[in-house]
Amino acid sequence: MRTPDELHRLVETYLADLALTPELGELAESMRYALEGGGKRIRPVICLATGEAAGAEPEVVLPAAAALELVHNFSLVHDDLPSLDNDELRRGRPSTWAQFGEAIAVLAGDALLTEAFRLALSYPTTAVARELAQATNGMIGGQYLDIQGTDDLAALHRLKTGCLFAASVGLALSAAGVPESEQRPWRAFGDELGLLFQIVDDILDEDGYVLSHGRDGARVLADEAAERAHVRLEEVPADTAVLAEIVSGLAARTS
Amino acid sequence: MRTPDELHRLVETYLADLALTPELGELAESMRYALEGGGKRIRPVICLATGEAAGAEPEVVLPAAAALELVHNFSLVHDDLPSLDNDELRRGRPSTWAQFGEAIAVLAGDALLTEAFRLALSYPTTAVARELAQATNGMIGGQYLDIQGTDDLAALHRLKTGCLFAASVGLALSAAGVPESEQRPWRAFGDELGLLFQIVDDILDEDGYVLSHGRDGARVLADEAAERAHVRLEEVPADTAVLAEIVSGLAARTS
Repeated sequence: MRTPDELHRLVETYLADLALTPELGELAESMRYALEGGGKRIRPVICLATGEAAGAEPEVVLPAAAALELVHNFSLVHDDLPSLDNDELRRGRPSTWAQFGEAIAVLAGDALLTEAFRLALSYPTTAVARELAQATNGMIGGQYLDIQGTDDLAALHRLKTGCLFAASVGLALSAAGVPESEQRPWRAFGDELGLLFQIVDDILDEDGYVLSHGRDGARVLADEAAERAHVRLEEVPADTAVLAEIVSGLAARTS
Repeated sequence: MRTPDELHRLVETYLADLALTPELGELAESMRYALEGGGKRIRPVICLATGEAAGAEPEVVLPAAAALELVHNFSLVHDDLPSLDNDELRRGRPSTWAQFGEAIAVLAGDALLTEAFRLALSYPTTAVARELAQATNGMIGGQYLDIQGTDDLAALHRLKTGCLFAASVGLALSAAGVPESEQRPWRAFGDELGLLFQIVDDILDEDGYVLSHGRDGARVLADEAAERAHVRLEEVPADTAVLAEIVSGLAARTS
């Protein structure tokens, strides 16, 4: 079993070597800029680790894992736009629109999303791409709630963050060929990850759950979410040591 | 064989009844607004007519046809944005961003694209969605050329307009189950449609080919494109009378 760091390096190499559709021409430059910002690659790493725990080599799961990262980055490129979050910085660099202009950023996001589907469609089954579409729609619905404002933070996070984390597990199951009848415990695990990630994010950013529950209260919630994820993982009939390490890392992360 | 008008009504009914992904919530309102602007539905009508000529009932081809219309409308919603074409009007009404704001329009476009893939993924094969992804990437590449400016108008139109027209034929073949070995003449026909549409569009708008070739010169080009499409159609071993009627309608359209 590969360590999370080894899986992370596989993701970076795959993304760096990824051939984009030639018809996109020089738009590819802005897409690569968005992709190469040095994110944590948490979703694709979870996807690869799930696939390996389910018996699939990373080579088999990498297109699905990369598709998740492209969808994540498409959402960041569009969310950063002036008309949405108006973020000029992303991971310490100018955001895509700040670097290339708004028009290019709109198109770069559109193309990242379409390329994500192309990758998800490299499997013999439609299942991988169908789940990606479902998760992407959920994420967009969450972003809509976010810009409209909502009192239901749990629903917002379940959509905006949770859908793509759950899909990180779900896509791996389809890519690895795990029969639907055996997927339930895996998916129960995947459903816990988005909330864990979000609470820790809020602790690091001092907003969201920290505002509603205080810093200590948010820490308790994060630890509870991590504990639930570990419990779910124990119900998965496979060697899930690497996934457990990822959960502990998500709970303890400091950036 | 159904007439183009009958096929058009099938498309309108299908789109009006289309259930959007529930997680999109009230974002659906802006998506329906964009979809219900009364466009000509040329791409889905070509798709249904191709499918019927190839022996498939419209019911079988409608999800693919609607997916094309959703991609077309996603592109209009994003192209109309202030940072791109800055169009406040679309088909005589406020464009989606002018009606709902820029942020909603960005998300509505994203969701229309994702829903298009969901529809294309309702087939047992990945072929329909793979071709949709390829055509969408080509279209986005064309839009990129358009906003960057290019001397190669033919390349621009082949991507921006031609890809989705060619896919209107291509998706129907996959949806109808036409074997790849029999698709060549159909696809040769599909490759002629985008240019025909574009030249007539330029004649109606008095730009593009009218600026480069004059009004009479553009009319000659349009008639030649229509003639090539008819010739290609004669090489298709099927009853293509409805498709021929559509070609003649495209050449003679006045709006």
